[in-house]
Amino acid sequence: MYKIVRNMSRMRFGFSKKIPTSQLNPKCLAVNLPPLRRASSNKSQNIYLVDEDDSSSSESSTNINKYTQRTHTCGELTIDNVGENVTLCGWLEFQRMDKFVVLRDSYGVTQLLIPDTDKKTQKLLQALPLETIIQVKGSVLSRPANMRNEKQQTGDVEVYVEDFVVLNKARDNLPFNIREFQKAKEALRMQYRYLDLRFPLMQRNLRVRSEMLMKMREFLVNRCGFVDVETPTLFKKTPGGAQEFIVPTRFPGQFYSLVQSPQQFKQMLMAGAVDRYFQIARCYRDEGARPDRQPEFTQLDIEMSFANLDGILELVEELLCNSWPDFLAPLPKKFQRISFADAMGRYGSDQPDVRFGFQLQNCTEVLKLNSKLVTADDFGAYCLVFPKEYANLGKSLKESFTELSKQYPLAKLVQSKVATPKEFASKIGKLLGESVATKLCGQVDLGDDSVAFLAYGDKRHAQNLLGKIRVNYVDYLETLGVSVKKKGMHILWVVDMPLFEPGETPGGLKSAHHPFTAPNTADLDLLEKAPLQVRSLSFDLVLNGNEVGGGSVRIHDPHLQEKILQMLGIDKSSMQHMIDMLSSGCPPHGGIALGLDRLMSKILKTSSIRDVIAFPKTFEGKDPLSGAPSPVSEADQKLYNVKSIFPVK
Amino acid sequence: MYKIVRNMSRMRFGFSKKIPTSQLNPKCLAVNLPPLRRASSNKSQNIYLVDEDDSSSSESSTNINKYTQRTHTCGELTIDNVGENVTLCGWLEFQRMDKFVVLRDSYGVTQLLIPDTDKKTQKLLQALPLETIIQVKGSVLSRPANMRNEKQQTGDVEVYVEDFVVLNKARDNLPFNIREFQKAKEALRMQYRYLDLRFPLMQRNLRVRSEMLMKMREFLVNRCGFVDVETPTLFKKTPGGAQEFIVPTRFPGQFYSLVQSPQQFKQMLMAGAVDRYFQIARCYRDEGARPDRQPEFTQLDIEMSFANLDGILELVEELLCNSWPDFLAPLPKKFQRISFADAMGRYGSDQPDVRFGFQLQNCTEVLKLNSKLVTADDFGAYCLVFPKEYANLGKSLKESFTELSKQYPLAKLVQSKVATPKEFASKIGKLLGESVATKLCGQVDLGDDSVAFLAYGDKRHAQNLLGKIRVNYVDYLETLGVSVKKKGMHILWVVDMPLFEPGETPGGLKSAHHPFTAPNTADLDLLEKAPLQVRSLSFDLVLNGNEVGGGSVRIHDPHLQEKILQMLGIDKSSMQHMIDMLSSGCPPHGGIALGLDRLMSKILKTSSIRDVIAFPKTFEGKDPLSGAPSPVSEADQKLYNVKSIFPVK
Repeated sequence: MYKIVRNMSRMRFGFSKKIPTSQLNPKCLAVNLPPLRRASSNKSQNIYLVDEDDSSSSESSTNINKYTQRTHTCGELTIDNVGENVTLCGWLEFQRMDKFVVLRDSYGVTQLLIPDTDKKTQKLLQALPLETIIQVKGSVLSRPANMRNEKQQTGDVEVYVEDFVVLNKARDNLPFNIREFQKAKEALRMQYRYLDLRFPLMQRNLRVRSEMLMKMREFLVNRCGFVDVETPTLFKKTPGGAQEFIVPTRFPGQFYSLVQSPQQFKQMLMAGAVDRYFQIARCYRDEGARPDRQPEFTQLDIEMSFANLDGILELVEELLCNSWPDFLAPLPKKFQRISFADAMGRYGSDQPDVRFGFQLQNCTEVLKLNSKLVTADDFGAYCLVFPKEYANLGKSLKESFTELSKQYPLAKLVQSKVATPKEFASKIGKLLGESVATKLCGQVDLGDDSVAFLAYGDKRHAQNLLGKIRVNYVDYLETLGVSVKKKGMHILWVVDMPLFEPGETPGGLKSAHHPFTAPNTADLDLLEKAPLQVRSLSFDLVLNGNEVGGGSVRIHDPHLQEKILQMLGIDKSSMQHMIDMLSSGCPPHGGIALGLDRLMSKILKTSSIRDVIAFPKTFEGKDPLSGAPSPVSEADQKLYNVKSIFPVK
Repeated sequence: MYKIVRNMSRMRFGFSKKIPTSQLNPKCLAVNLPPLRRASSNKSQNIYLVDEDDSSSSESSTNINKYTQRTHTCGELTIDNVGENVTLCGWLEFQRMDKFVVLRDSYGVTQLLIPDTDKKTQKLLQALPLETIIQVKGSVLSRPANMRNEKQQTGDVEVYVEDFVVLNKARDNLPFNIREFQKAKEALRMQYRYLDLRFPLMQRNLRVRSEMLMKMREFLVNRCGFVDVETPTLFKKTPGGAQEFIVPTRFPGQFYSLVQSPQQFKQMLMAGAVDRYFQIARCYRDEGARPDRQPEFTQLDIEMSFANLDGILELVEELLCNSWPDFLAPLPKKFQRISFADAMGRYGSDQPDVRFGFQLQNCTEVLKLNSKLVTADDFGAYCLVFPKEYANLGKSLKESFTELSKQYPLAKLVQSKVATPKEFASKIGKLLGESVATKLCGQVDLGDDSVAFLAYGDKRHAQNLLGKIRVNYVDYLETLGVSVKKKGMHILWVVDMPLFEPGETPGGLKSAHHPFTAPNTADLDLLEKAPLQVRSLSFDLVLNGNEVGGGSVRIHDPHLQEKILQMLGIDKSSMQHMIDMLSSGCPPHGGIALGLDRLMSKILKTSSIRDVIAFPKTFEGKDPLSGAPSPVSEADQKLYNVKSIFPVK
């Protein structure tokens, strides 16, 4: 049995199974928003079928108007409301002939009709700036058949205004208009963020983000018994991590650091018997001026005791499947796993974009035949080929790759159009030696009229260089309108990553993930003799070629932890509290952190993470709205026992 | 129709209507925890009755063991599991005769039985420190009838161990034992917080906090359509607020401030059409060394457009009623409202504790009869009487009140035992004049053998002094075992607070709430001529005599906002972004912030907010666990363009 439920307007932004996103407010939400289907013209769009057996329906239905001075939003009146007396509040979006008014809020638009007899309001309207805040009372009328607007959710009705109140007048000449076709530059949008937030796109981004985070919480708390624990952000500097902001205190010479992640706290929670922890945590990293980074960001932070790697990955897979927006195709139940070695060998990246092919072809063995070419200890040689239909190697693209190759000085790059494999062999014969060149062209999957890149030398440099070229080449093709990437969301795990990377000093080591990551037990015997070959129990989650999360099984053995710290050259005394914690009876544990800004940016297909953040900072870390950072008084500096120094230029 | 559901162990900490808290794990949770009823010996304690019509039951049931290496927690095995093969993980709580082992996790304890034939494990146990982490596999046995433990949730069974694995050995001689009767001093507990968290009390505090916050979110998001928006914490200094921490940046002389609340951001969200906002927000205030304050704290931050004061209060009332823990008596649907004037006049406090009477008695008019007594412009005189059965005014208490009175120099305090009203009149006749003294004793509700306090002079000083005495006197009585305060949670609103308070400079003003608080429209005409008499549209939420939240209707008119800033002497240019925002078409709006640390501390009846925070700092703001704050390198100081200064003593 089904019953009809109305007034669930909030849900239009959401992805409840009960309310297909095809019914989202077309005016406000479907403008240039690829992931959402356009509203159908099905006139039943405001009627939701709810299973009567669902006992939660009446209790859990959302009332978005309660506690306010409106009876309805601007997006919810339909033919079924005709005859009702309603109160609406919203922004003056548009007016015509001092008589027809379009009122807007974040849920939609409603047409108002000022009676011809109400000369006072008509006169008022003449001088009223757009974006003024208005409250109206009136009755709902059915629009004449020829005046109906199929594209508007409320397009069958209008409100005959009986009372018109200006709640707050907007000033004339706002910095920009709230018109999709008049979008302002980002700098201006950020300076007047409160105006920018009125755009349907920003409304949608913030609301989808809120809903997805709520689904994540519901899964973790209600389904899996995780405990939401808040951990401090004012903490002590972590050795060997990212650059941390410092916060001076009333104690001379003593500073807090702003946490780069709750890593140490969540491990202490495991020792403290909070065996299933999560937190949507604010974290801080000072990465200077870098695009698409923010000095503060949010991560979904999870840690679990008595779990191994498989358990953690399974949890995250089910978490994402259960919180995934309905407007996207469902995720697979299990995500593909790819080893770090494979990712580097086939995609030249630890964040492989599997939406397109053009995998690297390993030709290390062939090039090794010419010993003169083997200039690196860890030698590697790879080819990357784009066949005829994707061949497009113009001068400027080629130059950009030459420029790129300078970042990888230990690899040599050859880039060339290939008329035929034979022609290519003769072209590179001099460089590689004729026999190697011929063998190479016989082995590699080249085709006539293709484009080929060959990189050789230090394996990592060669791989990374071709990995970057692979992505940049495809991005370039797509700007030309060539469709290369598969649509949709492609998610995978990268596993078996190395525990260490070469450090700054010769022979030195640094953590590939962080110092608390457990080595793969199968590789423990390599720890002394070949530390760079030790695989860790860490993993990265990669969505459409970008890392959106990472985690690991942690070290729970205090002796092993001491050893790893020592190998990393980290002063043990600065980490004594962690060693003590592990020695107190700490369960085996592991966890993950998902970067929510990046994840939401991918899901909502925004060009920058700034579009999924209500009040982002510029890439320099400045807040154009308030002007932060800004000078502070001498008195405040004195209170915190610091003095500004101004470097001589 | 009812069916039996098992394995909902997580819920034991919670307060779902389906699972009475009387069924909470007795061993782990009912030790000295007043708000929880002790576990009954009802043997059906692990069987929960769930209405079969509740379609959510199967989908939403919690699986706390999924993704881990255990099959059950240490709190869930019952007679119904007999014969099952299980895997348990936990801490070695206790062992006896190398044979009986008690395994503990945060869900309970389970008795293990090592077979007599397993000499290896028996020997291992002899040397195994308590708190070692263990995994066992075995089968569930019914305990012999005479060995059953009625007080233990798993007391009917034991696990016959077939496989015993030490996962992580604890060191000998931990700083303290996990024994309720051996509780360590707070300094030690904070230094080894991960040990302290293993105590049932801390487990319960963190888990109840997590559950209550989840209920709040469910109410706000699912029932009311609020949007969870994260706002920045690195911001610009707010003029006229609390002391804010500063964060130096890579730009010389430029600092962020850590936000003291998301106030400005949430108002900008209202202008930005996010008309129903909430956030569980981290906030920062540097209040120096003050007990029960933390440099960072959490508040539930709410803002709503198109709402008036009644709407906001109704929202908060329903929010709290819907998220209120089941182990407490339900809140009233409407909370009592008391005006600020009434609260001060009757309780001598803007955070009136209504769990006991002993209200102030106004005797201003009587004392005014002797014009010599009227030393203040705003004169007030109040009596506070404790009748015979509560009369206990010893020397040290009296001295403490004399000391207290020095904080209120504009009020004169008389404190006295009262044999009879007549005797008291003669005692104070000299001071007040005989006629006034007689009149006073005739009017005030004195009794034989009572204790009376009289304070007169500046009204506020007299009220506040007696308000403090009222509370301290009762607290003192309760330490003597005299039960005075009503049990349970007593919540109320304080409304009609003044908009301004006298500022630091003569004639100057400062905000009683904050500069964005709207004045009561009825008092707008007083703004110029009697600003201190203007009531605001702000409100405080008071629970058992402590403020746990506060909010207001905000100013939405940019001209009024400019005027208020000017009256407060706040430089308009520092607030230009707020004026601009209000001028852009900002809806009328208001909101509240609930202090979650304080709220949870009240609800869980902890002696300090530190007991509801996983990793609190000391009252000086230090972290005994990591040693923060601590020195940072010269290089870091240079990067952030600051230099530590060390004041000469």
